[in-house]
Amino acid sequence: MNATIIGIGLIGGSMALALKEKGLCAKVIGVDNNPWHQEKALELGLVDEVLPLEKAVPQSDLVILAVPVNAAVGLLPQVLDLVTGQVVMDVGSTKHSLIQAVAAHDKRGRYVATHPMWGTEYSGPEAAVSGAFSKKATVICNKAETDVDAVEMVEQLYGALGMHLVYMEANAHDTHVAYVSHISHITSFALANTVLEKEREEDAIFELASGGFESTVRLAKSNPDMWVPIFQQNRENVLDVLNEHISQLRKFKACLEKENWDYLKELIEGANGIRKIVDRKF
Amino acid sequence: MNATIIGIGLIGGSMALALKEKGLCAKVIGVDNNPWHQEKALELGLVDEVLPLEKAVPQSDLVILAVPVNAAVGLLPQVLDLVTGQVVMDVGSTKHSLIQAVAAHDKRGRYVATHPMWGTEYSGPEAAVSGAFSKKATVICNKAETDVDAVEMVEQLYGALGMHLVYMEANAHDTHVAYVSHISHITSFALANTVLEKEREEDAIFELASGGFESTVRLAKSNPDMWVPIFQQNRENVLDVLNEHISQLRKFKACLEKENWDYLKELIEGANGIRKIVDRKF
Repeated sequence: MNATIIGIGLIGGSMALALKEKGLCAKVIGVDNNPWHQEKALELGLVDEVLPLEKAVPQSDLVILAVPVNAAVGLLPQVLDLVTGQVVMDVGSTKHSLIQAVAAHDKRGRYVATHPMWGTEYSGPEAAVSGAFSKKATVICNKAETDVDAVEMVEQLYGALGMHLVYMEANAHDTHVAYVSHISHITSFALANTVLEKEREEDAIFELASGGFESTVRLAKSNPDMWVPIFQQNRENVLDVLNEHISQLRKFKACLEKENWDYLKELIEGANGIRKIVDRKF
Repeated sequence: MNATIIGIGLIGGSMALALKEKGLCAKVIGVDNNPWHQEKALELGLVDEVLPLEKAVPQSDLVILAVPVNAAVGLLPQVLDLVTGQVVMDVGSTKHSLIQAVAAHDKRGRYVATHPMWGTEYSGPEAAVSGAFSKKATVICNKAETDVDAVEMVEQLYGALGMHLVYMEANAHDTHVAYVSHISHITSFALANTVLEKEREEDAIFELASGGFESTVRLAKSNPDMWVPIFQQNRENVLDVLNEHISQLRKFKACLEKENWDYLKELIEGANGIRKIVDRKF
């Protein structure tokens, strides 16, 4: 089959590589309004050709929307307007707003709302990597609103990429990702700002920073053009989790202020409980 | 030469492996008051024999203190009491309290205060790994208070392990590590507690948690017996950084509450500045 990927960045580009490597697509067409992305995507062999949306969709069996979530809300209805029998899927980090945006569209059934749980702190076509999605989870939202053949095509595609399928309603998805992804980004951004603000001696940070620091600030390198729209669309859930996170930090602060070392030990032992989740394997 | 390592856990055990692998020590003697650690350290070949402190020190040229920082404050004066011409070094994460504890000791000159900037979230002899310290930084504190031959032995040892030497006064060290290490642990502990507290659906966390979540909560698995004493000894610096971190998080909260997306973008762009530090290489 032929696929069109709209937005040939980190996720779109990695998806393009995966579709080709797994032999799922004879041709991958790229759509991107950034000329530099177009050029790089061709140069890196992520896509076979670059076309405008209107020309790409009629030549494709599958259209994958991989743009920031604010752009997706505007683009998805336009893509569905062009669709005859094609399947359309997105790969964005929030689901409720996008599903709402096409709830009344007469081609709603052709759209499969998905979220592959993979990413890095880098962006753009040069950030695309091969083998990206293997052994990760991918979420399919509101399956019941989607045509059976469309869901099946997407399930087969993700299955071929070695992904583990999880089904959820959009609201539940958006709540869960606030916990397991969005809050991690906020803590990492805030930690980077803390260190940059207070620690004037960059050489000292650089020399002393070890693996622990690097792993907690890694996400702070993430692109604001991707993340601001995610926080906009998932504002209430993220606020909820952020409020809880600030109160958890205040408990640590109170322990230090009051020199309550027994309670500090309890808090850390509680946190150790995360082992039972992150050390599990599929 | 022969070395004694007091505390055969993550750091002591990894140091034992490194000393043997680099051919720096003919014999490594382990001292540990935990019988299970003694047994494991012998079984894993981390040490050649296990002895009580009083018997180990006279047979050694070098004594390495690798116990939690609260235990070190009690043990270091005892070790120095036993020393004739040996060199004693510690590898703990805080330096001011320990240096203070032996400031007036008549063998102060034999003690080299060090902090190799390497660790993992695991603990105990089974957490020891080979090749642990290579290409990392190690701090030597208050060099001027130490005998020249003692510092030279330790410098040669760390050099042979492939470490990059950094010299600092104890107070400066403790301030810097609050930024580049201790605060990362607090944010990670608090993030784990946030998720464990609010997200009741463990299966959802498990299924959706991706690399980003894992890297920000990795340190939350760290051992409270090691970390509570670090926070005790570096209480004021950690409180200072933690207060700043909470105010940075409040800025993100205010952006979300007021839907101030321009300022949110600015905050994230500021955080992106951490790239220039963590992406540098020695």
